[in-house]
Amino acid sequence: MLVVQKYGGTSVGSIERIKEVAKRIAKRKKVGDDLVVVVSAMSGETNKLAELASQFSLNPNRREMDLLLSSGERVTSALLAIALSDMGYESIALSGRQAGIVTDGKHTKAKIEHIYTQAMKEKLKQGKIVVVAGFQGITHVGEVSTLGRGGSDLSAVAIAGALKADICEIYTDVDGIYTTDPRIEPKAKKLKEISYDEMLELASLGAKVLQARSVELAKKLNVNLVTRSSFNEDEGTYILKEEDIMEKALVSGIAIDKNQARVTLRGVSDKPGIAAEIFRKLSQEDVNVDMIIQNVGVDGSTNLGFTIPQNELEITDKAMRDIGASQSVEFDKNVVKVSVVGVGMKSHSGVACTAFDTLADENINIEMISTSEIKVSMIISEKYGELAVRALHDAYKLDN
Amino acid sequence: MLVVQKYGGTSVGSIERIKEVAKRIAKRKKVGDDLVVVVSAMSGETNKLAELASQFSLNPNRREMDLLLSSGERVTSALLAIALSDMGYESIALSGRQAGIVTDGKHTKAKIEHIYTQAMKEKLKQGKIVVVAGFQGITHVGEVSTLGRGGSDLSAVAIAGALKADICEIYTDVDGIYTTDPRIEPKAKKLKEISYDEMLELASLGAKVLQARSVELAKKLNVNLVTRSSFNEDEGTYILKEEDIMEKALVSGIAIDKNQARVTLRGVSDKPGIAAEIFRKLSQEDVNVDMIIQNVGVDGSTNLGFTIPQNELEITDKAMRDIGASQSVEFDKNVVKVSVVGVGMKSHSGVACTAFDTLADENINIEMISTSEIKVSMIISEKYGELAVRALHDAYKLDN
Repeated sequence: MLVVQKYGGTSVGSIERIKEVAKRIAKRKKVGDDLVVVVSAMSGETNKLAELASQFSLNPNRREMDLLLSSGERVTSALLAIALSDMGYESIALSGRQAGIVTDGKHTKAKIEHIYTQAMKEKLKQGKIVVVAGFQGITHVGEVSTLGRGGSDLSAVAIAGALKADICEIYTDVDGIYTTDPRIEPKAKKLKEISYDEMLELASLGAKVLQARSVELAKKLNVNLVTRSSFNEDEGTYILKEEDIMEKALVSGIAIDKNQARVTLRGVSDKPGIAAEIFRKLSQEDVNVDMIIQNVGVDGSTNLGFTIPQNELEITDKAMRDIGASQSVEFDKNVVKVSVVGVGMKSHSGVACTAFDTLADENINIEMISTSEIKVSMIISEKYGELAVRALHDAYKLDN
Repeated sequence: MLVVQKYGGTSVGSIERIKEVAKRIAKRKKVGDDLVVVVSAMSGETNKLAELASQFSLNPNRREMDLLLSSGERVTSALLAIALSDMGYESIALSGRQAGIVTDGKHTKAKIEHIYTQAMKEKLKQGKIVVVAGFQGITHVGEVSTLGRGGSDLSAVAIAGALKADICEIYTDVDGIYTTDPRIEPKAKKLKEISYDEMLELASLGAKVLQARSVELAKKLNVNLVTRSSFNEDEGTYILKEEDIMEKALVSGIAIDKNQARVTLRGVSDKPGIAAEIFRKLSQEDVNVDMIIQNVGVDGSTNLGFTIPQNELEITDKAMRDIGASQSVEFDKNVVKVSVVGVGMKSHSGVACTAFDTLADENINIEMISTSEIKVSMIISEKYGELAVRALHDAYKLDN
C-alpha cells in the first residue's frame, strides 16, 4: 500500500514529538507500506519567522517572505529523515522543489500546478521513506513559493493525488471529525466516515481540522483522506466519496460559527441595480458576504440584510461609506451561525423542518436562514448559540 | 564599482544588527556602487540546528544535514533583502542555488566548482542589491550542499572572482589583521595591507579573521580582499597580490599557535622506510603533522620528533599503538608555536637570525624550527609563548 502521511506543527513540535512520529512511521514501514511523509514546520516556527520579518517591514516582499517561511518545513523534514535513518530506516528528505512541486507565481499563496513525481517514485522504488517539506514548491522560473494557510495539508493531498496513493493520512492534535464541538456538547461523537461535501461544509463553517481547500483538492483528485491524532492510536475519521460511505447518516454534524456579523441596510431604494452595486463594492474589497435577505419594503424602499465575518466589519463599514450608504447601516456582532450538515438531506425531506421545530421548542428566534443541498444554516442570537447546538445534536440523535 | 560584501554571524546576529548592516549597505549603494552582499546565518543559528540534529543521531546523514544547515543563511538573506526594500532600496535575496553556485557532491564540505553568474548579473543590471545566502550551493544533481567552516567567506570570494568584482569586503567583529594578537601585545598595530601569502601563513598559524581556504581562493582568483569591522567605520586590512602592496614591510606579523603538541619517538630503528611508515599511517588517520625533526641516533636507532594539533593527540596515540611504536612515544602539550611572517624575508637575509637572537636574549630555548620563504616558526615552551611574542614584536619594531 502506498501511504501519504502529513504531520502538522504540534505533531512535530519538539524533539520528543519528532521521535514519536518517527516511531509511528517506522511501525508503518515495517508492515510493508510505502511511505511519503509530508511535514509542517515545528509549531511556532513559521510565526516566529513572520514576526522576525515584521520587524523590518510592515509589508515585506512576498517573494522574500517565501524564501524565509519555507525554511521551517525544510528543517523538520531534514530532522525527521535523520531520525528515521538513525533508527535503521532508509530515508530521504526532499524540499518542495526536490519533490517536484511546481506552483504558480503567487508568492505566499501559490497554487500547485503540477507535481513531477519522478524523484519521489525513484526513492520509493529504492525502498526509502520519502520525507517532504510541506507548504512549499517552486515556480516555473525557479523561485521558492509557499502555499498559504493549511499549505502542508495541500502538499500532502496533491502528492497523494499525483502518486495515486491508497490513502492520505492527516495527523494533527485532534483525533478526527466530531458530530459537533465536544467542548459545547460533551455527548459529541467522533465520525467514522464523512463525505467530501459534508466535510467541505463543516470546514467552511468553522471545523478547524481541515481547511476547505484541501478537502476540495482531495475531492477533485479523488484522494481518500483520513484525519487522525498523532498522539494516540485511534482510528480517526475517513473523508471519502459519497458513494464510498458505508452508513449514510441523515445528518453528520452540527457546526457553529461565532465569527459572524449581521449587517442591515435600512431604506435601500427599491430600484434594480442598487443591491448589485452594494455587493459589487463588497466583492471588490474582498469581503466574504454569506447569507443575504431582502425584505419587501414600503414606500419604494426596502431593507437589505447580509452576514459577513466579524473581522471584516471595519472594511465593510468603510465600503458602505464609500458608496454613501452609511447613514442607514446597522451592524450586529451578537449573532452566530448554527448549521446542520448531512448528505441525507438530499434524499430525505423534513430534515430542515426538524431544525426549525427544535429551535422553536427552545424559543430561539431564527433571524436568517440559508440552505444548500446538504446543509441548513441559521443565524441566531449569540447567547442561544450553544443551547441550539445541544438541542439540534439531540434532535438528530447524533450521540447514538 | 562592483563590490561584494560578506557579513558574518555576529554582524547579522540580531534584528538591530541586521538593520545596522542594511544602513551600511544603503550608504554604499547611494554613492553609486553595485552591490552583491553575502550573509552568514545569524550567530548561533547554525550551531542550534546542528545541536537539534545531534538529538536524533550521532552520525546524521550529511545530505540531510545540508538541507538543515543551509536554512540559517536563507533566513538572513531574506530578512536583509526585506529590510533593504523597506528602506527604499530594491533588493533581492538569492539562495545558493538561485545565485548559481554549483558545488561538488561532498555534503557538509562541498567545493565550489562553478558559478553561473547570469542571475546575479541580471539583477545587478536592474539596479538591485543582490543578497546571497552564503555557505551553500547546489550539486550537479540538484542537491543542497554546504561548504563547511568559513563557507560564507568562500561564497563571497568565489562570487567576487566570478563577477570580477573590484573588491571583496569581509565584515566581521574585528577590524582587520594585526601585527600580533593585541591581547598579548597591546602595542600591536593594525596592518593596512598584507599579501595573500603572508595572510595564508597567519591564517594557518591561528589568526582567526579569515580561513586559509578563502585566502587561497582569493589568491587563485586574484580577488582583492579587505577585512573590516561591521561595528565601526575603520579602514580594515587589505589582502592583495604582493606586487600591489605599497609599503613592503620586512616582517608583517608575529603569530602564536597554542594548539600544538610535540611528539617524540625514541629509539626508532634507523632503517629506510621506518619514518615513511609512521607518517603514512598518520596521514591515513588525517592527522596534520607540521614540523618534523629527525636527530642523528646512536646504535642504529634515532629519535624522531614532530608536532601535531593538540586535539589530534588521542588519534595519534592510537595510530602509534597500531603500528607498535607506543612503548617509545612521548607527548608534550606544553609547547606553543611562535612564527614570524613577512614577505621581506625573501629578499633580506638575517630576518631569521634576529628571531633566534631575540629568543636567546630572553633565555628561551627553541625546541624545533621550521622555515618557509616568508615565515620562521619556532616551537618553544608554552610558558614563554607570550613573552616571545612581545620580544619579537619589539625586535622587528612592529609598533611603528
